[in-house]
Amino acid sequence: MTNFFSSVARRQEATGSLLCVGLDTDLDRVPAHLQQLPDPIFAFNKAIIDATADQACCFKPQIAYYASQAAEEQLAATIAYLRELQIPVLLDAKRGDIGSTATHYAREAFERYGADAVTINPYMGHDTLLPFLEYQEKGVLILCRTSNPGGADIQNLVLKDGRRVYEYIAEQAAGSWNQFGNIGLVTGATQPQELARIRAISGDMPFLVPGVGAQGGDVEALMAAGQGGMLIINSSRAVIYASDGEDFAIAARSVAMATRQEINQYRTA
Amino acid sequence: MTNFFSSVARRQEATGSLLCVGLDTDLDRVPAHLQQLPDPIFAFNKAIIDATADQACCFKPQIAYYASQAAEEQLAATIAYLRELQIPVLLDAKRGDIGSTATHYAREAFERYGADAVTINPYMGHDTLLPFLEYQEKGVLILCRTSNPGGADIQNLVLKDGRRVYEYIAEQAAGSWNQFGNIGLVTGATQPQELARIRAISGDMPFLVPGVGAQGGDVEALMAAGQGGMLIINSSRAVIYASDGEDFAIAARSVAMATRQEINQYRTA
Repeated sequence: MTNFFSSVARRQEATGSLLCVGLDTDLDRVPAHLQQLPDPIFAFNKAIIDATADQACCFKPQIAYYASQAAEEQLAATIAYLRELQIPVLLDAKRGDIGSTATHYAREAFERYGADAVTINPYMGHDTLLPFLEYQEKGVLILCRTSNPGGADIQNLVLKDGRRVYEYIAEQAAGSWNQFGNIGLVTGATQPQELARIRAISGDMPFLVPGVGAQGGDVEALMAAGQGGMLIINSSRAVIYASDGEDFAIAARSVAMATRQEINQYRTA
Repeated sequence: MTNFFSSVARRQEATGSLLCVGLDTDLDRVPAHLQQLPDPIFAFNKAIIDATADQACCFKPQIAYYASQAAEEQLAATIAYLRELQIPVLLDAKRGDIGSTATHYAREAFERYGADAVTINPYMGHDTLLPFLEYQEKGVLILCRTSNPGGADIQNLVLKDGRRVYEYIAEQAAGSWNQFGNIGLVTGATQPQELARIRAISGDMPFLVPGVGAQGGDVEALMAAGQGGMLIINSSRAVIYASDGEDFAIAARSVAMATRQEINQYRTA
């Protein structure tokens, strides 16, 4: 177990929660009373974190939201705040590029922002993952079978030996790619059959499971399919936008608590 | 032809050059005499642009370099400068995410930075490309067969019908995905046989061809393989780091000119 997955395991134990809260913070959806602050996105995130931290094993800022809004400093402040609270931070970036460029993306995630883990796209192959994997204490979550409608387009193509592309990725990730033991897989909640297949292939590898909440993934089905290894179950919009009024943080807490409880209903271990 | 590819075609005609200069600017490699400036990365880029613009059909900043160095403002200044000169800008970002997130990445590239085109990773499927494609005047360059050593890991997997994954991507990109006619393909110079195959599949689709220069791609072979459609041939490090002294811009110009001439030796149209 690396530091990231160990930290998450400890927090899953301490909080009794597998829930990861996704910080996909769009300024247009930040409640009106925060809009006049100098750093409304950070203020929103801090309130969400304060209200939901005891219901969550980690937080996952999605970097696209900050990049589109030139809010890098507010992203950095959010991650710094989470680190201050000793809560693991997964930066959802889905980077992937040739080695010399990947080195810079790894620096962005791990050094500039100080994230504890990052999501990565494997389409360009193993050498493009290495600059991330070499940060051995960090978690590297590799896209395997994603939760979006077009996820099947490439990921479910059938290879000549009968395997599907996502199965090939799961095999490599659990096999020769995982030399430092710091890989996890991104496996969407919206395809529980494939999630079960990835569990069968990858042993007890940790999974980041997006797709619960706004994307409609079935918690009971994913819990049955994913058992046998660490599950980090992400909900973003359903939690953080539970209310658009001054009660947004309390409303987020209620949804986080309900999601945590729904998940725990189906925990077998 | 969309605005991006039309602009590039006009500049290829005007400059007699298929060369795209990649701005992978690493502060550690910026010459010493620029290091004390307030914006050394922009100063370096501006000097490179001024020295090579008449040898280049477009420029391609690689966003990872700016992100790792918290140099977003210098990236924005670089792109604004290129737009002032009416030179097309391709932002190399290789983004790819679910629709709601992809919308934010598209805003980052096209609205925040004002890039004319962007590179995209197709692993997550067609719906993740749409938010980019819907900017119909912009160019969307989809990763097909990349120039790095591990490019084959996933891209060359053989499907049950005998096609390879990269061939499937080329077919989709040239077919149903290209509803707005603004797609191009990223096809590395280091695999000329595959480049020829992608040309056969995709008709006259524009190609962005990285891998010349530091990555060692063979210009004669790629020109023979790629003929029949627009080629945008990228060289980054070999041009911009031609010298680490005060003569870096003159040295970059010499390499750009030599690369342009080498390419033109093999142009058939």
